[in-house]
Amino acid sequence: MKVAFQGIRGAYSEMALHDHFGKTVETVGCESFDDVFDLVNSGAVTYGFIPVENTIAGTVVENYDLLFANDVLVIAEVYLPIRHTLLAKKGARLESIKDALSHPHALKQCKAYLKLKNIRMVPTYDTAGAAKAVASGDRMNCAAIASELCAEIYDMEILEHNIQTNSSNTTRFFVIAKKENIPADHVTGKTTVAFKTRHYPGALVDCLKIFQKYSLNLTKLESRPIPETPWEYVFYAAFEAGIDSDEVKSAIGELTLHALFVKLLGSYPKAEKCW
Amino acid sequence: MKVAFQGIRGAYSEMALHDHFGKTVETVGCESFDDVFDLVNSGAVTYGFIPVENTIAGTVVENYDLLFANDVLVIAEVYLPIRHTLLAKKGARLESIKDALSHPHALKQCKAYLKLKNIRMVPTYDTAGAAKAVASGDRMNCAAIASELCAEIYDMEILEHNIQTNSSNTTRFFVIAKKENIPADHVTGKTTVAFKTRHYPGALVDCLKIFQKYSLNLTKLESRPIPETPWEYVFYAAFEAGIDSDEVKSAIGELTLHALFVKLLGSYPKAEKCW
Repeated sequence: MKVAFQGIRGAYSEMALHDHFGKTVETVGCESFDDVFDLVNSGAVTYGFIPVENTIAGTVVENYDLLFANDVLVIAEVYLPIRHTLLAKKGARLESIKDALSHPHALKQCKAYLKLKNIRMVPTYDTAGAAKAVASGDRMNCAAIASELCAEIYDMEILEHNIQTNSSNTTRFFVIAKKENIPADHVTGKTTVAFKTRHYPGALVDCLKIFQKYSLNLTKLESRPIPETPWEYVFYAAFEAGIDSDEVKSAIGELTLHALFVKLLGSYPKAEKCW
Repeated sequence: MKVAFQGIRGAYSEMALHDHFGKTVETVGCESFDDVFDLVNSGAVTYGFIPVENTIAGTVVENYDLLFANDVLVIAEVYLPIRHTLLAKKGARLESIKDALSHPHALKQCKAYLKLKNIRMVPTYDTAGAAKAVASGDRMNCAAIASELCAEIYDMEILEHNIQTNSSNTTRFFVIAKKENIPADHVTGKTTVAFKTRHYPGALVDCLKIFQKYSLNLTKLESRPIPETPWEYVFYAAFEAGIDSDEVKSAIGELTLHALFVKLLGSYPKAEKCW
């Protein structure tokens, strides 16, 4: 089975992917999130694996927009605590490290540690790419900030675990699939929908009242402006019940009466680990 | 008058800041958003200028969280269309450019253009920093992707305007101030609040019904998980009416009856330019 993710080998997405599917699955790194959706759509991979929210950076709106634009469904949610690791070439020693390569976000999250150790920050395009560059280079005083998985993939020395300042940094991922690739034994306990409201004050409340009527607890609600059409918004909502329940079916049915349109983004089991 | 922003001279924030306050204001670049809030709190600057939403990247949740945690108020909103400019040393020619330095986000937004021109992408910590580095370096075949303002500040050649693929890339900023620094003639037409709901299905709807009751049109609504307390959410909402109106005062009053707490983040004039 093949699963696509955005990034190169050792990206945090790949680490979360292994947590969910196990180590034996074949992973396919893509340049962009678009490419992940394309591979799922074309059938080149069975599943796609995409980040959708992070406790520090917030919602990955690009992926919600792609879910909205594509004919795929969310079939699972996965949470990964982001633990940044300081990696270097085999035999390197922490005391000798002068430079740390990584994506600006990761550098920022580890700023306090790097300052303490007097290590200079060197920005790169992504975290796993930084690890690969350090591993293939010849500098013993140069490290990368990336996932622990990179140590294994690029045969590197782990100099320090958990060097991030904020310990509650967690990313939520979605597994996406074409309808025909949803497993037969698929169970659902959570549902995510997108809908667009009509143009009058309180239109959103009229939509949300339906969720209340059926006692559906919202766990996420976010408005997203539509750049091409000022003052129009798509809302992304998640609630704790599966599409198989009568309440959810009735609620979505009623929602289509009040909203301009409703799109089911997916229904999936509630993850055990979460924030 | 002094206004603080995050970044170095020539950052997009500083460009938006000039659009709003004019060119004569004294700008103070800060290393982090925390520092901007600290300078406003301490009275070292009169105002702070912070990005809060971008059409591509979504909400800058860090700044909403800082608004929530600090005793400052939003007194204006400002929209800036992000137009990436290719800049190089004076006398450089577009045909000779081999490398383009910029933040990974900006590089990604200009990928199609760079590919077409066969220019290599070189990641840096921020856009204005890339411009400064190119200007102070000695390479005539190296460019930066940054704001047009950088050409003026670092005395650079503009090789090409508007090199981004997506023309609808717009950032929304907030001007923040301590209560005592709100101008006497301050007018309000839009209001942003944060509130936390009680723990029962439909609690959010009960809160939003109040906005509907007073015909207040929501222009933003976003849930934000509280990492320390799983399953608790703070909601950020904006609606099109000022705190001086009876409807808004009544709505916020009623909201405090239904929500666990309500915090006014600010009330400000509605910007003319928006998405």
